[in-house]
Amino acid sequence: MTASPLPDAQNTLAQRPFAQRLTGRTLALNTRLCLGLDPRADAYNGHAELRTHTLEVLHRCAGLVACVKPQLAFYEALGVSGMELLEEVCAAARALELPIILDAKRGDIGSTAAAYARAWLSGRHAGAALTVNPFLGFETLLPFVEEARQHGGAVFVLVKTSNPGQADLQGGGVSERVAEELTRLGRLELGAADGTGLSSVGAVVGATHPQELADWRRRLPHAPLLLPGLGAQGARPEDLAGAFLPGGTGAVVSASRGIQYAAGLDVAAAVQAAQGFRDGLNAALERATQN
Amino acid sequence: MTASPLPDAQNTLAQRPFAQRLTGRTLALNTRLCLGLDPRADAYNGHAELRTHTLEVLHRCAGLVACVKPQLAFYEALGVSGMELLEEVCAAARALELPIILDAKRGDIGSTAAAYARAWLSGRHAGAALTVNPFLGFETLLPFVEEARQHGGAVFVLVKTSNPGQADLQGGGVSERVAEELTRLGRLELGAADGTGLSSVGAVVGATHPQELADWRRRLPHAPLLLPGLGAQGARPEDLAGAFLPGGTGAVVSASRGIQYAAGLDVAAAVQAAQGFRDGLNAALERATQN
Repeated sequence: MTASPLPDAQNTLAQRPFAQRLTGRTLALNTRLCLGLDPRADAYNGHAELRTHTLEVLHRCAGLVACVKPQLAFYEALGVSGMELLEEVCAAARALELPIILDAKRGDIGSTAAAYARAWLSGRHAGAALTVNPFLGFETLLPFVEEARQHGGAVFVLVKTSNPGQADLQGGGVSERVAEELTRLGRLELGAADGTGLSSVGAVVGATHPQELADWRRRLPHAPLLLPGLGAQGARPEDLAGAFLPGGTGAVVSASRGIQYAAGLDVAAAVQAAQGFRDGLNAALERATQN
Repeated sequence: MTASPLPDAQNTLAQRPFAQRLTGRTLALNTRLCLGLDPRADAYNGHAELRTHTLEVLHRCAGLVACVKPQLAFYEALGVSGMELLEEVCAAARALELPIILDAKRGDIGSTAAAYARAWLSGRHAGAALTVNPFLGFETLLPFVEEARQHGGAVFVLVKTSNPGQADLQGGGVSERVAEELTRLGRLELGAADGTGLSSVGAVVGATHPQELADWRRRLPHAPLLLPGLGAQGARPEDLAGAFLPGGTGAVVSASRGIQYAAGLDVAAAVQAAQGFRDGLNAALERATQN
Protein backbone atom coordinates (compact mmCIF):
# COMPACT_ATOMS: atom_id res chain seq x y z
CA MET A 1 0.00 0.00 0.00
CA THR A 2 1.26 3.51 -0.79
CA ALA A 3 1.97 5.74 2.18
CA SER A 4 -0.63 8.39 2.95
CA PRO A 5 0.48 12.02 3.03
CA LEU A 6 1.37 13.48 6.41
CA PRO A 7 -1.78 14.07 8.47
CA ASP A 8 -0.96 17.77 8.69
CA ALA A 9 -0.76 18.22 4.94
CA GLN A 10 -4.05 16.42 4.58
CA ASN A 11 -5.76 18.56 7.19
CA THR A 12 -4.49 21.77 5.62
CA LEU A 13 -5.87 20.73 2.25
CA ALA A 14 -9.17 19.72 3.77
CA GLN A 15 -9.60 23.04 5.59
CA ARG A 16 -9.92 25.04 2.36
CA PRO A 17 -13.04 24.25 0.32
CA PHE A 18 -12.48 22.58 -3.04
CA ALA A 19 -13.93 25.46 -5.10
CA GLN A 20 -11.64 27.89 -3.33
CA ARG A 21 -8.57 25.81 -4.08
CA LEU A 22 -9.65 25.33 -7.70
CA THR A 23 -10.37 29.03 -8.19
CA GLY A 24 -7.14 30.06 -6.49
CA ARG A 25 -5.11 27.85 -8.77
CA THR A 26 -7.03 28.95 -11.89
CA LEU A 27 -6.22 32.60 -11.15
CA ALA A 28 -2.66 32.08 -9.87
CA LEU A 29 -1.55 30.00 -12.87
CA ASN A 30 -4.03 31.38 -15.40
CA THR A 31 -5.30 27.97 -16.45
CA ARG A 32 -8.77 26.36 -16.82
CA LEU A 33 -7.48 23.03 -18.04
CA CYS A 34 -8.12 19.75 -16.20
CA LEU A 35 -5.62 16.98 -16.88
CA GLY A 36 -7.32 13.63 -17.41
CA LEU A 37 -4.95 10.81 -16.42
CA ASP A 38 -6.29 7.56 -17.88
CA PRO A 39 -3.51 4.98 -18.22
CA ARG A 40 -4.52 2.58 -21.00
CA ALA A 41 -2.85 -0.83 -20.64
CA ASP A 42 -2.68 -1.39 -24.40
CA ALA A 43 -0.50 1.71 -24.90
CA TYR A 44 2.39 0.24 -22.89
CA ASN A 45 4.82 -2.63 -22.68
CA GLY A 46 4.00 -3.69 -19.15
CA HIS A 47 2.99 -2.08 -15.88
CA ALA A 48 6.33 -0.45 -15.05
CA GLU A 49 6.25 1.63 -18.25
CA LEU A 50 2.59 2.53 -17.69
CA ARG A 51 3.30 3.68 -14.14
CA THR A 52 6.40 5.73 -15.00
CA HIS A 53 4.77 7.43 -18.00
CA THR A 54 1.57 8.28 -16.12
CA LEU A 55 3.45 9.84 -13.21
CA GLU A 56 5.81 11.69 -15.58
CA VAL A 57 2.91 13.22 -17.52
CA LEU A 58 1.42 14.33 -14.20
CA HIS A 59 4.64 15.96 -12.99
CA ARG A 60 5.52 17.62 -16.31
CA CYS A 61 1.99 18.99 -16.95
CA ALA A 62 1.20 20.01 -13.36
CA GLY A 63 2.15 23.68 -13.81
CA LEU A 64 -0.16 23.99 -16.81
CA VAL A 65 -3.37 22.70 -15.25
CA ALA A 66 -5.93 23.72 -12.64
CA CYS A 67 -6.60 20.17 -11.48
CA VAL A 68 -6.16 16.51 -12.33
CA LYS A 69 -8.88 13.94 -13.10
CA PRO A 70 -8.04 10.24 -12.91
CA GLN A 71 -10.73 8.15 -14.62
CA LEU A 72 -11.20 5.20 -12.26
CA ALA A 73 -12.21 2.75 -15.00
CA PHE A 74 -8.65 2.60 -16.31
CA TYR A 75 -7.20 1.94 -12.86
CA GLU A 76 -9.83 -0.72 -12.10
CA ALA A 77 -8.98 -2.44 -15.39
CA LEU A 78 -5.44 -2.94 -14.00
CA GLY A 79 -6.68 -4.87 -10.95
CA VAL A 80 -5.14 -4.45 -7.51
CA SER A 81 -1.96 -2.88 -8.95
CA GLY A 82 -4.18 -0.26 -10.63
CA MET A 83 -5.63 0.70 -7.25
CA GLU A 84 -2.08 1.03 -5.92
CA LEU A 85 -1.18 3.28 -8.86
CA LEU A 86 -4.28 5.40 -8.24
CA GLU A 87 -3.16 5.98 -4.64
CA GLU A 88 0.28 6.92 -5.95
CA VAL A 89 -1.15 9.36 -8.52
CA CYS A 90 -3.32 10.99 -5.84
CA ALA A 91 -0.42 11.28 -3.39
CA ALA A 92 1.70 12.92 -6.12
CA ALA A 93 -1.11 15.33 -7.00
CA ARG A 94 -1.55 16.31 -3.36
CA ALA A 95 2.19 16.93 -3.05
CA LEU A 96 1.89 19.21 -6.11
CA GLU A 97 -1.13 20.97 -4.50
CA LEU A 98 -3.25 19.92 -7.47
CA PRO A 99 -6.98 19.54 -6.70
CA ILE A 100 -8.13 16.01 -7.60
CA ILE A 101 -11.40 15.08 -9.33
CA LEU A 102 -11.93 11.32 -9.04
CA ASP A 103 -13.96 10.48 -12.14
CA ALA A 104 -15.87 7.47 -10.85
CA LYS A 105 -19.50 8.33 -11.73
CA ARG A 106 -20.60 6.42 -8.64
CA GLY A 107 -24.23 6.24 -7.65
CA ASP A 108 -26.16 3.99 -5.28
CA ILE A 109 -28.72 4.14 -2.49
CA GLY A 110 -28.69 4.61 1.27
CA SER A 111 -25.80 3.08 3.18
CA THR A 112 -24.19 1.95 -0.09
CA ALA A 113 -23.99 5.54 -1.36
CA ALA A 114 -22.50 6.43 2.03
CA ALA A 115 -19.85 3.70 1.60
CA TYR A 116 -18.90 5.06 -1.83
CA ALA A 117 -18.74 8.58 -0.39
CA ARG A 118 -16.50 7.39 2.45
CA ALA A 119 -14.29 5.50 0.01
CA TRP A 120 -13.57 8.45 -2.28
CA LEU A 121 -14.21 11.64 -0.26
CA SER A 122 -12.68 10.87 3.14
CA GLY A 123 -9.58 9.27 4.64
CA ARG A 124 -6.69 9.45 2.21
CA HIS A 125 -9.07 11.00 -0.35
CA ALA A 126 -10.21 13.80 1.98
CA GLY A 127 -10.43 17.04 0.00
CA ALA A 128 -10.92 15.34 -3.36
CA ALA A 129 -13.93 15.79 -5.61
CA LEU A 130 -15.95 12.89 -7.00
CA THR A 131 -18.15 12.61 -10.09
CA VAL A 132 -21.59 11.21 -9.19
CA ASN A 133 -24.41 9.68 -11.27
CA PRO A 134 -27.84 10.95 -10.13
CA PHE A 135 -29.99 8.26 -11.83
CA LEU A 136 -31.01 6.60 -8.56
CA GLY A 137 -32.68 9.77 -7.28
CA PHE A 138 -31.96 13.06 -5.57
CA GLU A 139 -31.94 11.62 -2.04
CA THR A 140 -28.98 9.46 -3.10
CA LEU A 141 -26.83 12.57 -3.67
CA LEU A 142 -26.95 13.58 0.00
CA PRO A 143 -24.36 11.16 1.46
CA PHE A 144 -21.89 12.39 -1.19
CA VAL A 145 -22.66 16.06 -0.53
CA GLU A 146 -22.30 15.56 3.23
CA GLU A 147 -19.02 13.70 3.00
CA ALA A 148 -17.64 16.37 0.64
CA ARG A 149 -18.69 19.14 3.03
CA GLN A 150 -17.01 17.46 5.99
CA HIS A 151 -13.67 17.12 4.25
CA GLY A 152 -13.44 20.20 2.05
CA GLY A 153 -14.16 18.16 -1.05
CA ALA A 154 -16.79 18.46 -3.77
CA VAL A 155 -19.15 16.48 -5.97
CA PHE A 156 -19.60 16.90 -9.71
CA VAL A 157 -23.00 15.46 -10.61
CA LEU A 158 -23.76 14.38 -14.18
CA VAL A 159 -26.15 16.89 -15.74
CA LYS A 160 -25.62 16.40 -19.47
CA THR A 161 -22.85 14.09 -20.65
CA SER A 162 -20.68 14.64 -23.71
CA ASN A 163 -21.68 11.56 -25.73
CA PRO A 164 -24.10 11.43 -28.70
CA GLY A 165 -26.60 9.13 -26.93
CA GLN A 166 -26.96 11.28 -23.79
CA ALA A 167 -30.46 12.38 -24.86
CA ASP A 168 -31.82 8.81 -24.48
CA LEU A 169 -32.32 9.27 -20.74
CA GLN A 170 -31.08 12.83 -20.10
CA GLY A 171 -33.44 14.44 -22.65
CA GLY A 172 -37.04 15.50 -22.10
CA GLY A 173 -36.17 17.90 -19.32
CA VAL A 174 -34.22 15.41 -17.17
CA SER A 175 -30.92 17.35 -17.35
CA GLU A 176 -32.80 20.52 -16.45
CA ARG A 177 -34.43 18.82 -13.43
CA VAL A 178 -31.03 17.63 -12.21
CA ALA A 179 -29.62 21.16 -12.61
CA GLU A 180 -32.50 22.61 -10.63
CA GLU A 181 -31.89 20.17 -7.77
CA LEU A 182 -28.15 20.91 -7.81
CA THR A 183 -28.82 24.64 -7.59
CA ARG A 184 -31.08 24.04 -4.60
CA LEU A 185 -28.50 21.80 -2.92
CA GLY A 186 -25.63 24.10 -3.83
CA ARG A 187 -27.30 27.10 -2.23
CA LEU A 188 -27.37 25.19 1.06
CA GLU A 189 -23.69 24.29 0.70
CA LEU A 190 -22.37 27.75 -0.17
CA GLY A 191 -19.53 28.59 2.20
CA ALA A 192 -20.39 31.90 3.85
CA ALA A 193 -16.87 33.29 3.81
CA ASP A 194 -15.64 31.47 0.73
CA GLY A 195 -15.54 34.46 -1.59
CA THR A 196 -15.73 32.45 -4.80
CA GLY A 197 -19.53 32.35 -5.03
CA LEU A 198 -19.13 28.65 -5.79
CA SER A 199 -20.42 25.75 -3.72
CA SER A 200 -19.19 22.19 -3.21
CA VAL A 201 -21.96 20.93 -5.51
CA GLY A 202 -20.60 20.93 -9.04
CA ALA A 203 -21.98 19.71 -12.35
CA VAL A 204 -20.69 17.80 -15.35
CA VAL A 205 -21.77 19.31 -18.68
CA GLY A 206 -20.21 18.04 -21.90
CA ALA A 207 -17.95 20.49 -23.74
CA THR A 208 -19.52 18.96 -26.85
CA HIS A 209 -22.65 21.13 -26.37
CA PRO A 210 -21.07 24.58 -26.94
CA GLN A 211 -24.28 26.43 -27.85
CA GLU A 212 -25.84 25.47 -24.52
CA LEU A 213 -22.99 26.30 -22.16
CA ALA A 214 -24.06 29.87 -21.36
CA ASP A 215 -27.53 28.56 -20.52
CA TRP A 216 -26.15 25.88 -18.17
CA ARG A 217 -23.92 28.52 -16.57
CA ARG A 218 -27.05 30.61 -15.83
CA ARG A 219 -29.04 27.63 -14.54
CA LEU A 220 -26.17 26.59 -12.24
CA PRO A 221 -24.96 29.89 -10.79
CA HIS A 222 -23.08 28.39 -7.82
CA ALA A 223 -21.84 25.16 -9.40
CA PRO A 224 -18.25 24.60 -10.41
CA LEU A 225 -18.60 23.08 -13.89
CA LEU A 226 -16.54 20.19 -15.22
CA LEU A 227 -16.58 20.11 -19.03
CA PRO A 228 -15.24 16.90 -20.57
CA GLY A 229 -14.87 16.35 -24.28
CA LEU A 230 -11.91 18.48 -25.33
CA GLY A 231 -9.64 16.98 -27.96
CA ALA A 232 -10.45 13.36 -28.77
CA GLN A 233 -14.22 13.93 -28.47
CA GLY A 234 -14.16 16.96 -30.75
CA ALA A 235 -14.86 19.97 -28.53
CA ARG A 236 -12.73 23.05 -29.32
CA PRO A 237 -11.39 25.55 -26.75
CA GLU A 238 -12.71 28.50 -28.76
CA ASP A 239 -16.33 27.41 -28.24
CA LEU A 240 -16.34 27.14 -24.46
CA ALA A 241 -16.20 30.70 -23.09
CA GLY A 242 -19.90 30.62 -22.20
CA ALA A 243 -19.26 28.16 -19.38
CA PHE A 244 -17.20 30.59 -17.28
CA LEU A 245 -18.15 33.23 -14.73
CA PRO A 246 -17.23 36.83 -15.57
CA GLY A 247 -13.81 36.58 -13.86
CA GLY A 248 -12.86 33.54 -15.94
CA THR A 249 -13.47 31.14 -13.07
CA GLY A 250 -16.18 28.60 -12.25
CA ALA A 251 -15.32 25.95 -14.83
CA VAL A 252 -12.57 23.57 -15.86
CA VAL A 253 -12.31 21.79 -19.19
CA SER A 254 -10.79 18.33 -19.26
CA ALA A 255 -8.75 16.52 -21.89
CA SER A 256 -7.33 13.03 -21.37
CA ARG A 257 -6.12 11.08 -24.43
CA GLY A 258 -5.50 14.40 -26.22
CA ILE A 259 -2.79 15.18 -23.66
CA GLN A 260 -1.41 11.90 -22.28
CA TYR A 261 -1.23 10.26 -25.71
CA ALA A 262 -0.91 13.38 -27.89
CA ALA A 263 1.89 11.65 -29.82
CA GLY A 264 2.30 8.09 -28.60
CA LEU A 265 4.16 8.15 -25.30
CA ASP A 266 6.13 11.35 -26.10
CA VAL A 267 5.92 13.36 -22.86
CA ALA A 268 7.18 16.57 -24.52
CA ALA A 269 4.24 16.31 -26.92
CA ALA A 270 1.89 15.83 -23.95
CA VAL A 271 3.23 19.03 -22.38
CA GLN A 272 2.86 20.87 -25.68
CA ALA A 273 -0.73 19.64 -26.06
CA ALA A 274 -1.59 20.78 -22.53
CA GLN A 275 -0.03 24.17 -23.25
CA GLY A 276 -2.08 24.45 -26.46
CA PHE A 277 -5.37 23.64 -24.68
CA ARG A 278 -4.58 26.02 -21.81
CA ASP A 279 -3.71 28.87 -24.17
CA GLY A 280 -6.66 28.15 -26.44
CA LEU A 281 -9.08 28.37 -23.51
CA ASN A 282 -7.48 31.61 -22.28
CA ALA A 283 -7.58 33.19 -25.74
CA ALA A 284 -11.25 32.26 -26.10
CA LEU A 285 -12.05 33.88 -22.76
CA GLU A 286 -10.14 37.03 -23.72
CA ARG A 287 -12.04 37.31 -27.01
CA ALA A 288 -15.34 36.78 -25.20
CA THR A 289 -14.50 39.58 -22.74
CA GLN A 290 -13.65 41.98 -25.58
CA ASN A 291 -16.91 41.32 -27.41
CA MET B 1 -2.40 -10.20 -5.33
CA THR B 2 -4.64 -13.26 -4.96
CA ALA B 3 -4.00 -16.14 -7.34
CA SER B 4 -6.41 -16.53 -10.25
CA PRO B 5 -8.23 -19.84 -10.60
CA LEU B 6 -6.72 -22.41 -12.94
CA PRO B 7 -7.18 -21.37 -16.57
CA ASP B 8 -9.17 -24.55 -17.27
CA ALA B 9 -11.67 -23.92 -14.51
CA GLN B 10 -12.14 -20.38 -15.77
CA ASN B 11 -12.69 -21.53 -19.34
CA THR B 12 -15.21 -24.15 -18.30
CA LEU B 13 -17.19 -21.55 -16.39
CA ALA B 14 -16.98 -19.10 -19.27
CA GLN B 15 -18.27 -21.65 -21.77
CA ARG B 16 -21.71 -21.90 -20.14
CA PRO B 17 -23.78 -18.70 -20.38
CA PHE B 18 -24.52 -16.95 -17.08
CA ALA B 19 -28.31 -17.43 -17.31
CA GLN B 20 -27.83 -21.14 -17.87
CA ARG B 21 -25.60 -21.48 -14.83
CA LEU B 22 -28.00 -19.41 -12.72
CA THR B 23 -31.05 -21.40 -13.87
CA GLY B 24 -29.25 -24.70 -13.40
CA ARG B 25 -28.36 -23.84 -9.84
CA THR B 26 -31.85 -22.48 -9.07
CA LEU B 27 -33.42 -25.77 -10.15
CA ALA B 28 -30.77 -28.11 -8.73
CA LEU B 29 -30.77 -26.49 -5.26
CA ASN B 30 -34.34 -25.12 -5.33
CA THR B 31 -33.28 -21.60 -4.38
CA ARG B 32 -33.94 -18.11 -5.81
CA LEU B 33 -31.96 -16.29 -3.14
CA CYS B 34 -28.96 -14.09 -3.97
CA LEU B 35 -26.48 -13.61 -1.12
CA GLY B 36 -25.35 -9.99 -0.86
CA LEU B 37 -21.87 -9.86 0.71
CA ASP B 38 -21.21 -6.29 1.87
CA PRO B 39 -18.54 -6.21 4.57
CA ARG B 40 -19.14 -3.08 6.69
CA ALA B 41 -15.96 -1.91 8.41
CA ASP B 42 -17.84 -0.56 11.43
CA ALA B 43 -19.23 -4.01 12.25
CA TYR B 44 -15.80 -5.46 13.01
CA ASN B 45 -12.73 -5.12 15.17
CA GLY B 46 -10.20 -4.80 12.39
CA HIS B 47 -9.68 -6.20 8.91
CA ALA B 48 -8.79 -9.78 9.92
CA GLU B 49 -12.17 -10.27 11.60
CA LEU B 50 -13.99 -8.64 8.66
CA ARG B 51 -12.23 -10.93 6.17
CA THR B 52 -12.78 -14.15 8.15
CA HIS B 53 -16.46 -13.42 8.85
CA THR B 54 -17.24 -12.45 5.25
CA LEU B 55 -15.62 -15.60 3.84
CA GLU B 56 -17.28 -17.77 6.50
CA VAL B 57 -20.74 -16.38 5.70
CA LEU B 58 -20.05 -17.14 2.03
CA HIS B 59 -18.99 -20.73 2.68
CA ARG B 60 -21.75 -21.51 5.17
CA CYS B 61 -24.57 -19.98 3.06
CA ALA B 62 -23.35 -21.19 -0.35
CA GLY B 63 -25.61 -24.26 -0.48
CA LEU B 64 -28.67 -22.10 0.21
CA VAL B 65 -28.25 -19.53 -2.55
CA ALA B 66 -28.41 -19.32 -6.33
CA CYS B 67 -25.65 -16.72 -6.59
CA VAL B 68 -23.59 -14.20 -4.66
CA LYS B 69 -23.55 -10.40 -5.04
CA PRO B 70 -20.64 -8.43 -3.61
CA GLN B 71 -21.49 -4.70 -3.44
CA LEU B 72 -18.30 -3.01 -4.61
CA ALA B 73 -18.81 0.15 -2.53
CA PHE B 74 -18.00 -1.72 0.68
CA TYR B 75 -14.80 -3.20 -0.76
CA GLU B 76 -13.72 0.19 -2.19
CA ALA B 77 -14.27 1.77 1.23
CA LEU B 78 -11.55 -0.59 2.54
CA GLY B 79 -8.93 0.69 0.10
CA VAL B 80 -6.40 -1.60 -1.58
CA SER B 81 -6.97 -4.37 0.99
CA GLY B 82 -10.67 -4.25 0.09
CA MET B 83 -9.83 -4.94 -3.53
CA GLU B 84 -7.70 -7.87 -2.41
CA LEU B 85 -10.61 -9.20 -0.34
CA LEU B 86 -12.96 -8.84 -3.31
CA GLU B 87 -10.62 -11.00 -5.41
CA GLU B 88 -10.56 -13.55 -2.61
CA VAL B 89 -14.37 -13.56 -2.29
CA CYS B 90 -14.72 -14.05 -6.06
CA ALA B 91 -12.14 -16.85 -6.14
CA ALA B 92 -13.98 -18.61 -3.30
CA ALA B 93 -17.33 -18.19 -5.07
CA ARG B 94 -15.89 -19.64 -8.29
CA ALA B 95 -14.49 -22.60 -6.38
CA LEU B 96 -18.02 -23.14 -4.98
CA GLU B 97 -19.46 -22.84 -8.54
CA LEU B 98 -21.54 -19.90 -7.37
CA PRO B 99 -22.43 -17.40 -10.14
CA ILE B 100 -21.18 -13.92 -9.19
CA ILE B 101 -23.04 -10.63 -9.68
CA LEU B 102 -20.63 -7.73 -9.14
CA ASP B 103 -22.88 -4.93 -7.90
CA ALA B 104 -20.93 -1.93 -9.17
CA LYS B 105 -23.57 0.10 -11.03
CA ARG B 106 -20.89 1.26 -13.44
CA GLY B 107 -21.71 3.50 -16.37
CA ASP B 108 -19.60 5.67 -18.63
CA ILE B 109 -19.06 6.43 -22.32
CA GLY B 110 -17.03 5.01 -25.19
CA SER B 111 -13.61 3.65 -24.34
CA THR B 112 -14.20 4.31 -20.63
CA ALA B 113 -17.25 2.04 -20.61
CA ALA B 114 -15.10 -0.53 -22.41
CA ALA B 115 -12.43 -0.23 -19.69
CA TYR B 116 -15.05 -0.83 -16.96
CA ALA B 117 -16.39 -3.81 -18.92
CA ARG B 118 -12.91 -5.26 -19.26
CA ALA B 119 -12.21 -4.67 -15.59
CA TRP B 120 -15.25 -6.57 -14.29
CA LEU B 121 -16.37 -8.96 -17.06
CA SER B 122 -13.10 -10.39 -18.41
CA GLY B 123 -9.79 -11.72 -17.12
CA ARG B 124 -10.16 -13.04 -13.60
CA HIS B 125 -13.79 -11.85 -13.64
CA ALA B 126 -14.67 -13.73 -16.84
CA GLY B 127 -18.10 -15.29 -16.47
CA ALA B 128 -19.31 -12.82 -13.81
CA ALA B 129 -22.28 -10.51 -14.18
CA LEU B 130 -22.11 -6.76 -13.58
CA THR B 131 -24.80 -4.24 -12.62
CA VAL B 132 -24.80 -1.27 -15.02
CA ASN B 133 -26.30 2.24 -14.79
CA PRO B 134 -27.89 3.26 -18.13
CA PHE B 135 -28.12 7.04 -17.45
CA LEU B 136 -25.43 7.96 -20.00
CA GLY B 137 -27.43 6.47 -22.88
CA PHE B 138 -28.23 3.20 -24.62
CA GLU B 139 -25.07 3.19 -26.77
CA THR B 140 -23.05 3.06 -23.54
CA LEU B 141 -24.52 -0.36 -22.68
CA LEU B 142 -22.96 -2.04 -25.72
CA PRO B 143 -19.36 -2.45 -24.49
CA PHE B 144 -20.74 -4.17 -21.38
CA VAL B 145 -23.08 -6.43 -23.38
CA GLU B 146 -20.26 -7.39 -25.77
CA GLU B 147 -17.76 -8.18 -23.03
CA ALA B 148 -20.40 -10.26 -21.20
CA ARG B 149 -21.18 -12.20 -24.39
CA GLN B 150 -17.51 -12.97 -25.04
CA HIS B 151 -16.92 -14.42 -21.59
CA GLY B 152 -20.22 -16.10 -20.73
CA GLY B 153 -21.11 -13.31 -18.32
CA ALA B 154 -24.13 -11.02 -18.07
CA VAL B 155 -25.20 -7.48 -17.34
CA PHE B 156 -28.00 -6.40 -15.01
CA VAL B 157 -29.09 -2.92 -16.07
CA LEU B 158 -30.92 -0.66 -13.60
CA VAL B 159 -34.56 -0.40 -14.67
CA LYS B 160 -36.32 0.64 -11.45
CA THR B 161 -34.33 0.79 -8.25
CA SER B 162 -35.66 -0.15 -4.81
CA ASN B 163 -35.32 3.26 -3.08
CA PRO B 164 -38.13 5.77 -2.38
CA GLY B 165 -36.58 8.49 -4.58
CA GLN B 166 -36.21 6.35 -7.69
CA ALA B 167 -39.09 8.18 -9.40
CA ASP B 168 -37.10 11.47 -9.50
CA LEU B 169 -35.30 10.39 -12.68
CA GLN B 170 -36.71 6.91 -13.39
CA GLY B 171 -40.33 8.06 -13.45
CA GLY B 172 -42.24 9.54 -16.39
CA GLY B 173 -41.71 6.49 -18.58
CA VAL B 174 -37.92 6.33 -18.21
CA SER B 175 -37.88 2.87 -16.58
CA GLU B 176 -40.22 1.63 -19.32
CA ARG B 177 -37.94 3.00 -22.05
CA VAL B 178 -34.93 1.28 -20.49
CA ALA B 179 -36.87 -1.99 -20.33
CA GLU B 180 -37.85 -1.69 -23.99
CA GLU B 181 -34.22 -1.20 -24.99
CA LEU B 182 -33.12 -4.15 -22.85
CA THR B 183 -35.71 -6.39 -24.50
CA ARG B 184 -34.43 -5.33 -27.93
CA LEU B 185 -30.81 -5.94 -26.89
CA GLY B 186 -31.67 -9.17 -25.11
CA ARG B 187 -33.35 -10.63 -28.17
CA LEU B 188 -30.07 -10.18 -30.08
CA GLU B 189 -28.15 -11.87 -27.28
CA LEU B 190 -30.38 -14.92 -26.81
CA GLY B 191 -28.24 -18.05 -27.04
CA ALA B 192 -29.77 -20.26 -29.74
CA ALA B 193 -29.23 -23.56 -27.91
CA ASP B 194 -29.39 -22.20 -24.38
CA GLY B 195 -32.75 -23.67 -23.45
CA THR B 196 -33.47 -21.22 -20.64
CA GLY B 197 -35.17 -18.57 -22.81
CA LEU B 198 -33.06 -16.05 -20.93
CA SER B 199 -30.43 -13.77 -22.42
CA SER B 200 -27.26 -12.24 -21.01
CA VAL B 201 -29.04 -8.87 -20.69
CA GLY B 202 -30.66 -8.77 -17.27
CA ALA B 203 -32.49 -6.06 -15.37
CA VAL B 204 -32.56 -4.73 -11.82
CA VAL B 205 -36.07 -4.13 -10.50
CA GLY B 206 -36.56 -3.34 -6.82
CA ALA B 207 -38.34 -6.01 -4.78
CA THR B 208 -39.95 -3.04 -3.03
CA HIS B 209 -42.41 -2.64 -5.94
CA PRO B 210 -44.35 -5.93 -5.54
CA GLN B 211 -47.52 -4.86 -7.39
CA GLU B 212 -45.49 -4.12 -10.52
CA LEU B 213 -43.35 -7.24 -10.71
CA ALA B 214 -45.64 -9.25 -12.97
CA ASP B 215 -45.76 -6.31 -15.37
CA TRP B 216 -41.93 -6.00 -15.46
CA ARG B 217 -41.74 -9.78 -15.98
CA ARG B 218 -43.99 -9.40 -19.07
CA ARG B 219 -42.09 -6.38 -20.39
CA LEU B 220 -38.75 -8.17 -20.02
CA PRO B 221 -39.49 -11.70 -21.27
CA HIS B 222 -35.85 -12.71 -21.84
CA ALA B 223 -34.17 -10.81 -18.99
CA PRO B 224 -32.90 -12.49 -15.86
CA LEU B 225 -34.22 -10.21 -13.09
CA LEU B 226 -32.27 -9.15 -10.03
CA LEU B 227 -34.59 -7.98 -7.25
CA PRO B 228 -32.85 -6.20 -4.38
CA GLY B 229 -34.64 -4.97 -1.30
CA LEU B 230 -35.42 -8.11 0.71
CA GLY B 231 -35.12 -7.81 4.48
CA ALA B 232 -33.56 -4.53 5.58
CA GLN B 233 -35.37 -2.56 2.84
CA GLY B 234 -38.74 -4.06 3.70
CA ALA B 235 -39.64 -6.33 0.78
CA ARG B 236 -41.24 -9.66 1.80
CA PRO B 237 -40.70 -13.01 0.05
CA GLU B 238 -44.46 -13.66 -0.15
CA ASP B 239 -44.98 -10.66 -2.47
CA LEU B 240 -42.46 -11.53 -5.15
CA ALA B 241 -43.88 -14.50 -7.07
CA GLY B 242 -44.87 -12.28 -10.00
CA ALA B 243 -41.22 -11.78 -10.95
CA PHE B 244 -40.65 -15.41 -11.89
CA LEU B 245 -41.20 -17.37 -15.09
CA PRO B 246 -43.70 -20.27 -14.94
CA GLY B 247 -40.99 -22.80 -14.02
CA GLY B 248 -39.88 -20.71 -11.04
CA THR B 249 -36.79 -19.45 -12.82
CA GLY B 250 -35.78 -16.11 -14.38
CA ALA B 251 -35.27 -14.09 -11.20
CA VAL B 252 -33.17 -13.95 -8.07
CA VAL B 253 -33.96 -11.91 -4.96
CA SER B 254 -31.07 -10.48 -2.98
CA ALA B 255 -30.64 -9.80 0.72
CA SER B 256 -27.42 -8.44 2.23
CA ARG B 257 -27.53 -7.00 5.77
CA GLY B 258 -30.54 -9.22 6.49
CA ILE B 259 -28.31 -12.28 6.08
CA GLN B 260 -24.70 -11.27 6.88
CA TYR B 261 -25.67 -9.27 9.98
CA ALA B 262 -28.93 -11.05 10.86
CA ALA B 263 -27.78 -11.13 14.51
CA GLY B 264 -24.52 -9.26 14.88
CA LEU B 265 -21.71 -11.48 13.62
CA ASP B 266 -23.45 -14.76 14.48
CA VAL B 267 -22.85 -16.96 11.42
CA ALA B 268 -25.42 -19.55 12.49
CA ALA B 269 -28.02 -16.76 12.51
CA ALA B 270 -26.89 -15.72 9.01
CA VAL B 271 -27.42 -19.29 7.78
CA GLN B 272 -30.84 -19.40 9.44
CA ALA B 273 -31.82 -16.08 7.85
CA ALA B 274 -30.74 -17.30 4.40
CA GLN B 275 -32.74 -20.48 4.93
CA GLY B 276 -35.79 -18.43 5.92
CA PHE B 277 -35.59 -16.22 2.83
CA ARG B 278 -35.02 -19.21 0.55
CA ASP B 279 -37.98 -21.12 1.99
CA GLY B 280 -40.20 -18.02 2.01
CA LEU B 281 -39.56 -17.44 -1.69
CA ASN B 282 -40.22 -21.09 -2.52
CA ALA B 283 -43.46 -21.14 -0.50
CA ALA B 284 -44.65 -17.98 -2.25
CA LEU B 285 -43.98 -19.56 -5.64
CA GLU B 286 -45.81 -22.71 -4.66
CA ARG B 287 -48.86 -20.75 -3.51
CA ALA B 288 -48.81 -18.74 -6.75
CA THR B 289 -48.76 -21.96 -8.80
CA GLN B 290 -51.73 -23.43 -6.88
CA ASN B 291 -53.87 -20.32 -7.42
